Amino acid sequence: MERARGVVAVSSGNHAQGVAEAARLFGIAATIIMPSDAPAVKRRRTERSGARVIAYDRASDDREAIAADLIARHGGTLIHPYNNAAVIAGQGTIGLEVAADCDALGVRPSVVAVPCGGGGLSSGVNIAMSDAYPEVRIALVEPENFDDYRRSLREGRIVRNATSGGSVCDALMAQAPGAIGYSINSRGNASAVAVSDSEALGAVAFAFRELKLVVEPGGAVALAAALADRIDIRGNTAVIVLSGGNIDESVLSRALASDGAPD
Amino acid sequence: MERARGVVAVSSGNHAQGVAEAARLFGIAATIIMPSDAPAVKRRRTERSGARVIAYDRASDDREAIAADLIARHGGTLIHPYNNAAVIAGQGTIGLEVAADCDALGVRPSVVAVPCGGGGLSSGVNIAMSDAYPEVRIALVEPENFDDYRRSLREGRIVRNATSGGSVCDALMAQAPGAIGYSINSRGNASAVAVSDSEALGAVAFAFRELKLVVEPGGAVALAAALADRIDIRGNTAVIVLSGGNIDESVLSRALASDGAPD
Repeated sequence: MERARGVVAVSSGNHAQGVAEAARLFGIAATIIMPSDAPAVKRRRTERSGARVIAYDRASDDREAIAADLIARHGGTLIHPYNNAAVIAGQGTIGLEVAADCDALGVRPSVVAVPCGGGGLSSGVNIAMSDAYPEVRIALVEPENFDDYRRSLREGRIVRNATSGGSVCDALMAQAPGAIGYSINSRGNASAVAVSDSEALGAVAFAFRELKLVVEPGGAVALAAALADRIDIRGNTAVIVLSGGNIDESVLSRALASDGAPD
Repeated sequence: MERARGVVAVSSGNHAQGVAEAARLFGIAATIIMPSDAPAVKRRRTERSGARVIAYDRASDDREAIAADLIARHGGTLIHPYNNAAVIAGQGTIGLEVAADCDALGVRPSVVAVPCGGGGLSSGVNIAMSDAYPEVRIALVEPENFDDYRRSLREGRIVRNATSGGSVCDALMAQAPGAIGYSINSRGNASAVAVSDSEALGAVAFAFRELKLVVEPGGAVALAAALADRIDIRGNTAVIVLSGGNIDESVLSRALASDGAPD
């Protein structure tokens, strides 16, 4: 059987856009397996880059099995959204940029708070920041009910979440830590905290009103943890990573309406 | 008569917030004369900093006369939003930062597009950028029907707008170029272009969707001019200043709905 020289990705929607656009630039086909309840903006932007999108049901389907079956039948290279060393290295460049900025500012951060789903972004940032600042603490911030990293670090082994959906943080509903990221984040310098949907939405509203940044709920959880005093930033130099700005307008309206302190 | 040691400002809302917050930090009273149709977010944020807000009607009232009368009766120092050398110098620090960033990137800009109302921001940026790059061209971008700078530069003297309101760019409805800014922007390196309301709203939507930035219409006009091919950026290294992110949600919704190319 001839193998298609394309790429296949499973993604809640942000990795999807990156893979789709990279494939377009390189002139290769991309197939993305995306949950049926992904924000409309994420699906539109993925398709705009020319990718084929296959929808799956978060509750009943196994996206990894769909991807494996697709590749067995048609060929292609799987680009996993977090359990992939190259993806982790790429996301880790955020940490390199942060370290360069900290050096330019003459500050030495003691804590870095990062949104955490499967743990790709956070483990990449962990490597880069730990290299620059060996004593730095990494705060992994997860959505409520998706605290697999917190429980995994406590138990010393990878454990899964009991639920597969329902969080407003659509980007962070991975079922369990990826093996590669877990091997990095379990070295002793990271701990995990969880934030509620309303805290995440409050951080979206804060970013919109005060920082003038468009951030999706999953991208705002580290900011939410800081605003809710879940991480120890007082008196410390803290880095807070905001990552992901693909938010449907209805969710933004909900965030702005629900925030207790307009402007 | 005892003079109050406070500050008085006339402002469509952004300068208002800056003056109000600076007054709060220095522990002095601030009175801001603001149009009655200013975005709610601007009035709320100004009052949040403890300033007293006096509303005036753009069509029938003379805000400068209201300020002069207030100061004659109660004292205080007027901080004009654009016809003030210190304000122009402060806004010019944007140009200093841009020049430092360009140097760090190793690029030499040939054109800088800046939103233009009374001309404070643009003349400050003009000074800073011309100092760093003597050959740089400055594109002053105005809203349609508020092209007083374009007509003033053409006629070689300060001329006023015929209308006092009606633009979605609430921050850029000054009646005429300020004398100080005009003396800077009329030295020969600046020219002015105008954009329509729908072009400004399209740029707000573009900034939201593609740049993940919250920008108000008046702050997005330079981007609008670039997107509409009103300034010569192709093949050039262009700097586009986006300034002002205080947008009411209803205006953002209008921008996102009206934009012809969702995502």
